Amino acid sequence: MKKGNPFGTHRVINPEGALPQPAKKLDNTMEIYSNEILIDVQTLNVDSASFTQIKNACNSDENKIADMINEIVNERGKLQNPVTGSGGMLIGTVKEIGPDFPDKSLKVGDKIATLVSLSLTPLKIEEILKVNKSTDQVDIKGQAILFESGLYAVLPEDISEKLALAVLDVAGAPAQVDKLVEKDQTVCIIGGGGKSGILCTYQAKKKAGKDGKVIVIEYSEENAKRLKDMGIADEVIVADATKPVTVYEKINEITNGDLCDVVINNVNVEETEMSSILITKDEGVVYFFSMATSFTRAALGAEGVGKDISMIIGNGYTKGHADLSLQIIRESKQIRELFEKLYI
Amino acid sequence: MKKGNPFGTHRVINPEGALPQPAKKLDNTMEIYSNEILIDVQTLNVDSASFTQIKNACNSDENKIADMINEIVNERGKLQNPVTGSGGMLIGTVKEIGPDFPDKSLKVGDKIATLVSLSLTPLKIEEILKVNKSTDQVDIKGQAILFESGLYAVLPEDISEKLALAVLDVAGAPAQVDKLVEKDQTVCIIGGGGKSGILCTYQAKKKAGKDGKVIVIEYSEENAKRLKDMGIADEVIVADATKPVTVYEKINEITNGDLCDVVINNVNVEETEMSSILITKDEGVVYFFSMATSFTRAALGAEGVGKDISMIIGNGYTKGHADLSLQIIRESKQIRELFEKLYI
Ligand SMILES: NC(=O)c1ccc[n+]([C@@H]2O[C@H](COP(=O)([O-])OP(=O)(O)OC[C@H]3O[C@@H](n4cnc5c(N)ncnc54)[C@H](OP(=O)(O)O)[C@@H]3O)[C@@H](O)[C@H]2O)c1
Ligand SMILES: NC(=O)c1ccc[n+]([C@@H]2O[C@H](COP(=O)([O-])OP(=O)(O)OC[C@H]3O[C@@H](n4cnc5c(N)ncnc54)[C@H](OP(=O)(O)O)[C@@H]3O)[C@@H](O)[C@H]2O)c1
Repeated sequence: MKKGNPFGTHRVINPEGALPQPAKKLDNTMEIYSNEILIDVQTLNVDSASFTQIKNACNSDENKIADMINEIVNERGKLQNPVTGSGGMLIGTVKEIGPDFPDKSLKVGDKIATLVSLSLTPLKIEEILKVNKSTDQVDIKGQAILFESGLYAVLPEDISEKLALAVLDVAGAPAQVDKLVEKDQTVCIIGGGGKSGILCTYQAKKKAGKDGKVIVIEYSEENAKRLKDMGIADEVIVADATKPVTVYEKINEITNGDLCDVVINNVNVEETEMSSILITKDEGVVYFFSMATSFTRAALGAEGVGKDISMIIGNGYTKGHADLSLQIIRESKQIRELFEKLYI
Repeated sequence: MKKGNPFGTHRVINPEGALPQPAKKLDNTMEIYSNEILIDVQTLNVDSASFTQIKNACNSDENKIADMINEIVNERGKLQNPVTGSGGMLIGTVKEIGPDFPDKSLKVGDKIATLVSLSLTPLKIEEILKVNKSTDQVDIKGQAILFESGLYAVLPEDISEKLALAVLDVAGAPAQVDKLVEKDQTVCIIGGGGKSGILCTYQAKKKAGKDGKVIVIEYSEENAKRLKDMGIADEVIVADATKPVTVYEKINEITNGDLCDVVINNVNVEETEMSSILITKDEGVVYFFSMATSFTRAALGAEGVGKDISMIIGNGYTKGHADLSLQIIRESKQIRELFEKLYI
């Protein structure tokens, strides 16, 4: 049994020298290298942007969607949407573990969710069993490979699989909040009423403590009310984060001109960098989790208003992120109930 | 005389409610508000990413470059490259100071460099006098406006204007290196042979000390040799930062598998995120100063290889950055001589 590269470059067919994610085609032979694991796949959780694109291209016809997914995987050896570039994640059962795979606690038969994108995961589909258009999930018969550097979580027994999948998708965000926020700080969560936002709000309040202040900026009255009723934030402001001057004025007022130590951006729309920057105090931190963040807008924006702040790119991975996010679901009955309603 | 918004929103024509940097179009009427200053512009120092893009689009033809710069400024009221989003900075002479401008030490006739990007600075070009392809500098006849929150530096008397301009353009980078690098650390400067790269290399070595290790990755043999001769880095590697696997292998070897505590990315080309991520050790830091950085490539890339690292967006501003970068020129005779040769 040969040993592969930890990052999976041994499976890249083209272009040469690329890593699996940017690669055009992967070798999806379902015979493992000594540092890989083989997974019997049960469900693909297709990334929302990718699923929407495929669904639209297929006029919502389930058979056509299945054909298109098969085509992509046949061509690329992985489920990476050629239009959006994105993937998703999967759940399945461990079938074989290479002798050089580093985590010795994992056992054959364990049910896991992969925490690296499908856009870099070698995949072979034997049969598509069911396309679920309302949850973006596709049940299949097939197999996948996880590299030595690949991340996964063993699914917990006390949380339903689909709820776990929904939470694990954004696990990086609350884990970063846990690292960044200190006792008594003022924290603002922009888009705090969404999936990752609620988890961040909960964790920020836990870390900032009763003398800290957690402020949420939320777009819709409806989501804002839902969040207020849950009582996990100190203040909930309804505002449009693409309007920096308005947001700045509201936060300036609510903090008596002090602004925020830490700002977490969890929105799903463009052009919210300046709001995030303006409401951060001198030497404070902005954590951009939103994938709609523009690097240049943030870099030049902060300089443009003379703000000496740190701006962090939302790495989807931090050690312990899966456990921390699932722990929130165990701790907060309110969040669990809401997420069960929304995501199952 | 009317008073404007400190951030310059009163000059935004569209979209409404935006700040000057993300705005599509600024009002570049050269009549000041009471908290602005008017500058007689002498030279534009175009951002390297922007200049490279314009130069390539114009086949290096100086007249075409001049036309393209005129077009951009006519359309946007500011020199913001529509492809890269970036700008640059300028030097000029203070012509008029509004009565409400906060810094009362500034005088009409002072020669200053603006430290906020041209991508948010209202600019009017009367005539382009000279395009200098080797320094990315453009001499013009024209005027510009600085807002109340705008940063600037009065040009020092012991350093020539063009040298100061070249250095101030990238002042944020060595100042951040000064904050991030600690004694005895291993630091890699990607693109360390360029302008910001050399300043970062010098500052990194100063902070890491004699038991620290500063490694430079440089593309051309020529720049690498120049840097080796200067003796400011511990190791200079010739490699293409868009080839992550090669770069990783070289750094892995040179650091005996330890990788780097801090990685500074100073290149001016795309697709170097993965190299930066792969050579950073667990819990290390990547500082992306390069404007060619893609937010999503960095965020998904780190997750894809399971790297628990902090990735920082290169804020062009940090307190004291102008002084720190000019100080390097005063301290290092070698850097001064090289920069005088390259940028004057
Ligand atoms: N960095 C990573 O590794 C990673 C991983 C996964 C996801 N993400 C990104 O994280 C982001 C959030 O994901 P999610 O699943 O939490 O999304 P979500 O549940 O859709 O939440 C987005 C939130 O942003 C709010 N919002 C939208 N426009 C707004 C505006 N103009 N002003 C203020 N709030 C606004 C939404 O409010 P309304 O509902 O009221 O409109 C919603 O509460 C996405 O951009 C996603 O791509 C990043
Ligand atoms: N964040 C901010 O506020 C801010 C402010 C100003 C500038 N910047 C950005 O900072 C970056 C650097 O600016 P600069 O003025 O220092 O540019 P520069 O002098 O042109 O330096 C760029 C360096 O990158 C090297 N390079 C290019 N391609 C490479 C590759 N494939 N592999 C390895 N090295 C490579 C170049 O080497 P060769 O010469 O050998 O090709 C050169 O040494 C630019 O992207 C600029 O936009 C950011």
